[in-house]
Amino acid sequence: MTDDVYATRRDRAGERLREVGADALVCFPSRNLRYLTGFATEPGERHFLLVVPAGGAATLLVPELYGTQLREATDVADVRTWADGDDPRAAARDVLDDHGIRDGRILVDDTMWARFTQDLRAVAPDADWGLASEALGDLRVRKDETELDALRSAAAAADATMNDLRDLGADAVGMTERELAAWIADRLAAHGGTGTAFETVVAAGENGVKPHHGHGDRGIRAGEPVVLDFGTRVDGYPSDQTRTLVFDGEPSAAYREVHAVVREAQSAAVDAVEPGVTAAAVDRAARTVIEGAGYGDTFVHRTGHGVGLDVHEEPYIVADNDRELEPGMVCSVEPGIYLDGRFGCRVEDLVIVTVDGCERLNATDHGWE
Amino acid sequence: MTDDVYATRRDRAGERLREVGADALVCFPSRNLRYLTGFATEPGERHFLLVVPAGGAATLLVPELYGTQLREATDVADVRTWADGDDPRAAARDVLDDHGIRDGRILVDDTMWARFTQDLRAVAPDADWGLASEALGDLRVRKDETELDALRSAAAAADATMNDLRDLGADAVGMTERELAAWIADRLAAHGGTGTAFETVVAAGENGVKPHHGHGDRGIRAGEPVVLDFGTRVDGYPSDQTRTLVFDGEPSAAYREVHAVVREAQSAAVDAVEPGVTAAAVDRAARTVIEGAGYGDTFVHRTGHGVGLDVHEEPYIVADNDRELEPGMVCSVEPGIYLDGRFGCRVEDLVIVTVDGCERLNATDHGWE
Repeated sequence: MTDDVYATRRDRAGERLREVGADALVCFPSRNLRYLTGFATEPGERHFLLVVPAGGAATLLVPELYGTQLREATDVADVRTWADGDDPRAAARDVLDDHGIRDGRILVDDTMWARFTQDLRAVAPDADWGLASEALGDLRVRKDETELDALRSAAAAADATMNDLRDLGADAVGMTERELAAWIADRLAAHGGTGTAFETVVAAGENGVKPHHGHGDRGIRAGEPVVLDFGTRVDGYPSDQTRTLVFDGEPSAAYREVHAVVREAQSAAVDAVEPGVTAAAVDRAARTVIEGAGYGDTFVHRTGHGVGLDVHEEPYIVADNDRELEPGMVCSVEPGIYLDGRFGCRVEDLVIVTVDGCERLNATDHGWE
Repeated sequence: MTDDVYATRRDRAGERLREVGADALVCFPSRNLRYLTGFATEPGERHFLLVVPAGGAATLLVPELYGTQLREATDVADVRTWADGDDPRAAARDVLDDHGIRDGRILVDDTMWARFTQDLRAVAPDADWGLASEALGDLRVRKDETELDALRSAAAAADATMNDLRDLGADAVGMTERELAAWIADRLAAHGGTGTAFETVVAAGENGVKPHHGHGDRGIRAGEPVVLDFGTRVDGYPSDQTRTLVFDGEPSAAYREVHAVVREAQSAAVDAVEPGVTAAAVDRAARTVIEGAGYGDTFVHRTGHGVGLDVHEEPYIVADNDRELEPGMVCSVEPGIYLDGRFGCRVEDLVIVTVDGCERLNATDHGWE
């Protein structure tokens, strides 16, 4: 991507601010900052702000030790710095004053720390506050081709790793969840991924009933299902898919039944994805199958979530989301059944909404074998 | 640690709330949550709150898919859940009402996302808001023996890795910064560390001028300084130290001079650390040496920061911090000199403030060889 991409995105953000009746957007180190400037860093305790006014050029206010880096790495013309020992709140007030927005409607990053929002409220007591997603949500939710290519590449790295796991087969028995998670991280990197996009889930046997169990010291056993949910990133964009495998031996009849239901629910939901269909309808498609099989109470989470620079973003595939799907949206489809004290089962793919249906980003088999 | 540790910490937090005139503390997935419950997870888009009232027992309000996990992993008796499709704001309002604090003074995690603080403000419009650090800062800043042991172990893993880097010597020449960062991550894990505590800095030659440069595709060359700043965690507690090494050949006379100044500044600051001395005085000790050598303008950051569950926390070793050091505090001492377009140099150790001075946690040589 050239720098033009970011200047264009900031211009479009400025237009969106006008459309939603806001005067400015204030980002801190976040995915929005990366989206609008190309610069990625983790939040720290120092004030680091990007101010995008509804009309006009953006300002970066950053700690002095970032000054050189930001002037080199971004195309933002107005980069101001503050030094340790200065009062960053006064510097922030000056930026808001210079843009004439100190008593306006200001949207802040949804993830901005209270440490910074409380300071902004203190220097702009007459402002009205909202969230950046009100304006940026509609921009970020429809991915451009550059973003889709990155998502496809990340999914391919994850698929290759899932195939490696199937090849591992019985050799996984006796490894701990933690060891298998480290093995997965190595394979993701070997297939071109950068890091892990979220805490790798290796949930063996009864640990599988906790949908957000990470990985622990429990050993993998033959004949039991293991929930495998992991992701990596390519060019900043993540993968996210789940298979529930049995590495060796035969699972119980109960598990085979549950797995067949989850698989059918997942296919039904993917089949439902097309432009104009609501997120709620996709959730309903999965839930109908699981409820029909008598497991409705055990499907304790939503069917999916959008995926972009954030692993979890709009569109959320949940019962109360009447948002209609549009081409360029990307989401997960991941129903599950969780039987307390016994096992869990989840199957997940990412899909891109296309003009007449969807493109599945994950191509590996859905089975438990 | 037994569960008693967390119940005791919550009781002490409740007392501190009274002392600072606050009615409650609200945490989300944060280091404070870990400190008060032992439970660690990353923030997500779902409402996940711990409410600690000034008097009385705490309440956890978590997404349903975390319910089983939280009831097993923590000693919080009142764990409430909300399901996807429910309104988590209504559930949060009920919790605040049940504790009688909806119009009180409420402290929120310093890192709590605007997404959640704006919702809390909406359901408690008459509350007065502050930051958790107002109450928890004084508890967390003085580490107990369990915490100090974890910090010592993490420092030992990092020291062993720094020694491995010295042993690598000329073999590092030709590696890229990124490759060396991956090598460091492997060594940290081999020495018992868990993950990297922050983005590993491998900043070769002119990249060293950016104090927060991570690592890129530049190759390591002979005769040039490489800033190496990395950390890992043991039992949740991080290491953090820096050496600026020349892997092969001889550096310039200019670099040798700069390195000697930084080393002297670092030693002067460590020598200044003892109970009753202000953080500002420690900063001053380092800055005096660097200014005296004529490099004052190039030391563009503070001298250090406290280290605990957060890699950056109080006490900040900065010119305007008049806080007096106390036994049990832990901080970094890391002066640096950065010459635009040429090179950077930083030397950093962690120290524990003891009853009569300090204990250096990092034992490796300070030299560039």
